[in-house]
Formats: sequence, structure tokens, C-alpha cells
Amino acid sequence: MKPYREMSKEELTQQKEELTKQFENAKGMGLKLDMSRGKPTPAQLDMTMGLMDVLNSDSDMMTMDGVDTRNYGLMDGIIEAKHLLADVMSVPAENVIVYGNSSLSIMYDTISRSVTHGVMGSTPWCKLDQVKFLCPVPGYDRHFAITQHFGIEMILIPMTPNGPDMDLVEKYVNEDPAVKGIWCVPKYSNPQGISYSDETVRRFAALKPAAEDFRIYWDNAYAIHHLYEDKQDQILEILSECEKAGNPDMVYEFCSTSKITFSGSGIAAMASSQANLADIKKTLTLQTIGYDKVNQLRHARYFKNLEGMMAHMKKHADILRPKFEAVLSVLDRELGGLGIGEWTRPLGGYFISFDAMEGCAKAIVEKCKEAGVVLTGAGATFPYGKDPKDSNIRIAPTFPTSEEMAAATDVFVLCVKLVSVEKLLQA
Amino acid sequence: MKPYREMSKEELTQQKEELTKQFENAKGMGLKLDMSRGKPTPAQLDMTMGLMDVLNSDSDMMTMDGVDTRNYGLMDGIIEAKHLLADVMSVPAENVIVYGNSSLSIMYDTISRSVTHGVMGSTPWCKLDQVKFLCPVPGYDRHFAITQHFGIEMILIPMTPNGPDMDLVEKYVNEDPAVKGIWCVPKYSNPQGISYSDETVRRFAALKPAAEDFRIYWDNAYAIHHLYEDKQDQILEILSECEKAGNPDMVYEFCSTSKITFSGSGIAAMASSQANLADIKKTLTLQTIGYDKVNQLRHARYFKNLEGMMAHMKKHADILRPKFEAVLSVLDRELGGLGIGEWTRPLGGYFISFDAMEGCAKAIVEKCKEAGVVLTGAGATFPYGKDPKDSNIRIAPTFPTSEEMAAATDVFVLCVKLVSVEKLLQA
Repeated sequence: MKPYREMSKEELTQQKEELTKQFENAKGMGLKLDMSRGKPTPAQLDMTMGLMDVLNSDSDMMTMDGVDTRNYGLMDGIIEAKHLLADVMSVPAENVIVYGNSSLSIMYDTISRSVTHGVMGSTPWCKLDQVKFLCPVPGYDRHFAITQHFGIEMILIPMTPNGPDMDLVEKYVNEDPAVKGIWCVPKYSNPQGISYSDETVRRFAALKPAAEDFRIYWDNAYAIHHLYEDKQDQILEILSECEKAGNPDMVYEFCSTSKITFSGSGIAAMASSQANLADIKKTLTLQTIGYDKVNQLRHARYFKNLEGMMAHMKKHADILRPKFEAVLSVLDRELGGLGIGEWTRPLGGYFISFDAMEGCAKAIVEKCKEAGVVLTGAGATFPYGKDPKDSNIRIAPTFPTSEEMAAATDVFVLCVKLVSVEKLLQA
Repeated sequence: MKPYREMSKEELTQQKEELTKQFENAKGMGLKLDMSRGKPTPAQLDMTMGLMDVLNSDSDMMTMDGVDTRNYGLMDGIIEAKHLLADVMSVPAENVIVYGNSSLSIMYDTISRSVTHGVMGSTPWCKLDQVKFLCPVPGYDRHFAITQHFGIEMILIPMTPNGPDMDLVEKYVNEDPAVKGIWCVPKYSNPQGISYSDETVRRFAALKPAAEDFRIYWDNAYAIHHLYEDKQDQILEILSECEKAGNPDMVYEFCSTSKITFSGSGIAAMASSQANLADIKKTLTLQTIGYDKVNQLRHARYFKNLEGMMAHMKKHADILRPKFEAVLSVLDRELGGLGIGEWTRPLGGYFISFDAMEGCAKAIVEKCKEAGVVLTGAGATFPYGKDPKDSNIRIAPTFPTSEEMAAATDVFVLCVKLVSVEKLLQA
């Protein structure tokens, strides 16, 4: 079929008629499908149940260096867990604090602490007239929600296939002292699945921030979340790059096992310079007497090391890959060459990003809903929930079965076509 | 022996000589004892190891209402855990949010949120010139450390055998709109083991705060931590008392299983009015996608219900009671009638509070250290670490064995006598 934009009004009208019929049929099927949930499917959780056998009443509950995991203390995590998550991030264990079950709450905490107490002695952000964050878009809605909550102004930075537009990033960071941070998902980004190129990472490391308390919020959420054995993205390790570039304190890196073991019951960590960690620990010691060391021990013993974790991640990939491919095959088959949408082909992560014709995303999401297919709300991938082009839609293939994903994508492409035809007819 | 104050200078000097000899002997013994650690002893943790057998790879991981505890979601806790901790606090389950492993971090969070975002629409505390908290003393150092961290002015409120001096509390709370909170450990208080009388609780509930965002921070840390079967303190339930008095939103109550199961790996909760919980959840939804529901399930299934937990607490009491009695018996025998110190006889909790003659606490702690016995630093039970009378010392009998506690207390009473004699000789 030829591109929609090349169709005559008559052709478009005829298309609309056909598509409307198909849409009415689809509505009649009473579907109930959900492409919105970026969470593991039960099969992934079942595959991890061995985690529950690691510790029992006969277990030695001591760490390898003799700390009783059952009692108070050891605020920054047990040594085994530090090593495990350090290896996930390719950083030294001494640069890691292991927290509780959620990297999101570490990020919230980090922002909140900067608001009330500043960063390494700088002015607390609550005392400043203006604080700004750079937000590569499309991006992760929960990042944006945190900055919005604290009244931080968000500046949109377009994503490129190599990461954020670094010309813009450099301009803002190096010139505006109100810019205190940037949200990054450097590997298999949410929602596009883009991994930052080596040049992008090096340009990040070489920033010359106008603000002494500027930090890169490096959310390495999908560090080892590959879909393929033979095609995998790798990114440069940011801490050492920053150190080489003379900016040792410029990064907070985050990771967790939420999409490795159990989503609500994993362990999470931050990696940063010794100076940053010392600054953080001054507050941390008031917040807690220690995180859940038993669960840290459970995780460390379950995986033993990074190799154990990578073997586990292969099993995740085997479950997730067919779902991604089911979506992509329908998109390719039904929308290829029509010129009414573009989509990413990630090699890892949890999402596929779809860009519809400008001004169509909301209408597509709405139409899908009518036909029983739930999508992430249009705009969710932008600060304040507002996509200036009303174009981006996040597809989350992980939770439903491959068959459900294929069926849901069938409805999705139908809605994309119908909304696009209507848009072109209005033009 | 007659009271020290009635002794002549000669008698005191003779005492001092004898005591100094004994002290030199004690120093020569090379003791290494610690009465400072308010944490469970390994025997208590061993006795809870069955917790590790509750879940295994064959377990049904669903809650009773069908939530998969392994996945994301259910921000405010699983229903089973809500009921369990609600019963500990004698409140309805719908008034409870179950969090992660630490009630201290809930308290920190509560203060931090009030600083950045206010309470139910009130002005954020960071925008106010002055915020004050009432601090019943002696009290819990970590409470005071949080308020100090946020620059909140702390006002000392003396404890009485029935709880805080309520005349003072009423005066401050009802007259000063800068007073935003009061720290309370209402049952088996830290460090005195005092439980608030019914009249005290009712007077709390009947406060007429000058500040709309005044809250009582009710840290019910030792709700079921009795030492005896036949002698137990009970306190009135504060949420319902406040509701009856027309102050439904005036309390945040906290509890945890830190001293019930494993100290670093338990579950913690807050209880409050629906209006407060709704306010809190607006922020909570940005902080986390949910706390560790697997650990909540593990705890709920381990205990089944409050009765199960109470049976478990009896075993704790059997381990702790002899330690408390070992300390008290030495104090009674060696210091009874001397008029140089007073101490509490708690029926529960984790501490014994000792009041030395004014101006003696620091010197006693120092002397004990010389002889190899570590005590909590003098002043630690007061805001800013400053005991105006330099009198209070917190004794933590739980961690060492009964024999070690008796030996440590032998050294302690010797130091109390020696320092008191020296003080009286100076006078």
C-alpha cells in the first residue's frame, strides 16, 4: 500500500470507510487487553522462585565478613550485595550503597535531600528562587513526577538515536547555574530503548557545569536487561569517565533488581564518588539504622556473582523476546511504508516507543480504549504529561502473553491508521 | 550504709579511698562490656529463625485478596500485614499503611514531607521562620536527631511517672502556632520505660493546637514488648481518643516489628486518620511503587494474628527479663538508700533509666569506660545531646548475657559511688 500522504482525498475516504468497519468489528469482539504495564509477567516471577529457598531456619545469617544480617546496623549494605550490584554497574564495590527495595525511592530521597539540605554544602534548593532539571524526552514519567513535585522547572531535551541532544545539554548545563540535574536512562532507555553512544557518555563526563551542585541522575535501570544473546548494547561506565574528565563528583548512578528478581521485593543501589557517598551518609544515618540486610544476603547468595545474574537474565530474555517480536512484526507488516508512524527496535529494556503523526497520539490511545486495548496515556512520556507534538506512545510488551500482545497490536495499528486517515482528511 | 549526703567529710574521704581501690581493681580486670546497645541479643534472633521457613519456592505468593506479592504495586501494603500491625496498635486496618523495614525512616519521611510540602495543605515548614517541636526528656536520641537535622527548635518537656508534663504541653501546643509536633514513646518509653496514664492520653487527645498542622508523633515502638506475664502496662488507644475529642487528624502513630522479628528486616507501619493517609499517599505514590510485599506476606503468615505474635513476645520476655532483673538487683543492693541515684523499674521496653546526682552523669560514663564498660553517652537522651542537669544515663540490658549485665552493673554502681563521693567532697 502506498504512503497515506500520497493518497488522494477519495482514496483516503475509502480507506476511512474500510477502517471504520474494521474498527467496529474490533469493538464488537469485547477485547480486554493491556499494553500499558511496564512490569514483569508472572512467568518471569515464577522462574525466580528459587530465591525463596536461599534462606531457611538452618541458614548461616552472617555475611562473609561476620555481620549478623538479622540485627540492626551496617547502614550502607552488606559486602556481598555491594559487590553484586557494583558488578551490575561496572563500578568498584566501595563506590556503592545498597538500599532497600526501590531505586525510585533512592532517587526521590536524593532530590528531597538536595531540596532540604543541598549537595555537599551548597545552598539547599528550597532556598533558591529557581531550580531546573533537563529532561530528555520521551522519558520516564516517574522521574518527571518527582521533579514536578518539588517545583523544579523541567526543560525538554530531545532524544536522538545516540542519546540526549548533547549540544543542548552542554548549552544549558554549562551556562545556567539554575540547572541542577538531568534525568538519564542511559541504556535501553524508557521508552525508546536507546543506549547512549560512547561519544554521548564522554560529552556528559566532560560537562563544565555552571552549578557546583549539578549532578547527572544516571538511572541504569536496564543495565543487564538484554533481549538477545548476539546483539547487545554496551555503554561506557560513567563514573570512571567523569573521574578521567576531572568531574569525579558529577554522577549519581542508580540500579535495582526490580526487573531481575521480584519487582517489589528486590534490592536497589546507588553508585557515586566517595565524596558524594560521604555527604549522603550524613543524612542516611538519621533516616535509618539500616536497610533489609537479610534480603540483601538472599539476593547475593542466590546469584553468587554477576555471571549467575547474567545466566538468569537470559531466561528473562527468552520470555520477553517473543513479545517484543510479536509487536514489531505486526507494526512492520501493517504500518511499514505507510508513513504514518515510526517505532524503535530495542535490543533490551521494557518498552517500544511509537511516534505517530503529530497531533494523533491522544486520539489513538482513546480509540484503542474504545476497542478494549489499554495503552499508557499519551503525553505520559513528557514532563507535566504534555507531549508538545502529541505524537509519542509507549508500548509495554512484557506483561501480556505474545498472543495477547499480537492481538493488542492488531487493534493498535488499526487505530493508528484510522486516526491518521482522519487527520489527513481534516488537513 | 547511710545516705552519702549525711556522711561527714572524713567518712566521705574514707569511702573515696576504699572506692578508688575497688575501681583500680576493676580496671585491672580488663573487662570489655557494653551496656549501650538497644538491640536484640542473638538468642532473640535465633528464636525467630522460623520466619525464614515461611516462604519457599512452592509457596503461594498471592495475598488473601489475590495480589501477587512478587510484582509491582499496592503502595500501602498487603491486607494481611495491615491487619496484623493494626492489631498491634489496636486500630482499624483501614487506618494503616504498611511500609518497609524501618519505622524510623517513616518518621524521617513524615518530617521531611512536612518541611517540603506541608501537612494537608498548610504552609511547608521550609517557608516558615520558625518551627518548634516538643521533646519529652529523657527521650529517644534518634527522634531528636531528625528534628535537629531539619533545623527545628526543640523544647524540653520533663517526663513525669505518668508521661510528659501535660500542663507544659498544653501551654505550648495551645498557645504557640510555631509548635508543630511532639515526639512521644507512649508505652515503655525510651529510656524510662514509662507508660502514659489514661489521663495523659486524654489530655493529649483534648489539645487545642494553635497550629492547624500540629501533629502528635506517637512512636508506639514497644506496644507489645512486655517483660512480665502478670504485670503489664496498657495505654489508651490514641486515634479513637482524638476522634472522640474532635481532633481526628492530630496523630501519626508508628510501629514496627524491628524488636519482634529481625531488627533490620522486619516491617513497619503508620496509623492515622483517613484524611492524613490520603495526604501522605499523594507523596508516597511519587516515592515508591510499593514496599516489600513478600516480606509483609512472610510476617503475616508467620504470626497468623496478634495472638501468634503475643505468644512470640513471651519468648522474648523470657530472654530479656533476667537481664533487666540482673541490673535492678545490683542497683538495689549497692545503691539502695545511698541517695546518690534513682532508677526506673520498667515492665517492658528495652531500657532502664538512671538519674545520678546532678553534674555526675558524664563523669560516671567516663569512669565506666576507663574500667572497660561502655555506656550510652551522657546527654544522648536529650536534644542536642545536652542534659541540662548532666544526670541521666540510659542502660540497655538486652544485648549482653545476664552474667555480663550483672558484671557491668557492678562496675557501674562502683563508678556511681566514686563520682558521687568526689562530687560531695567538692561541695
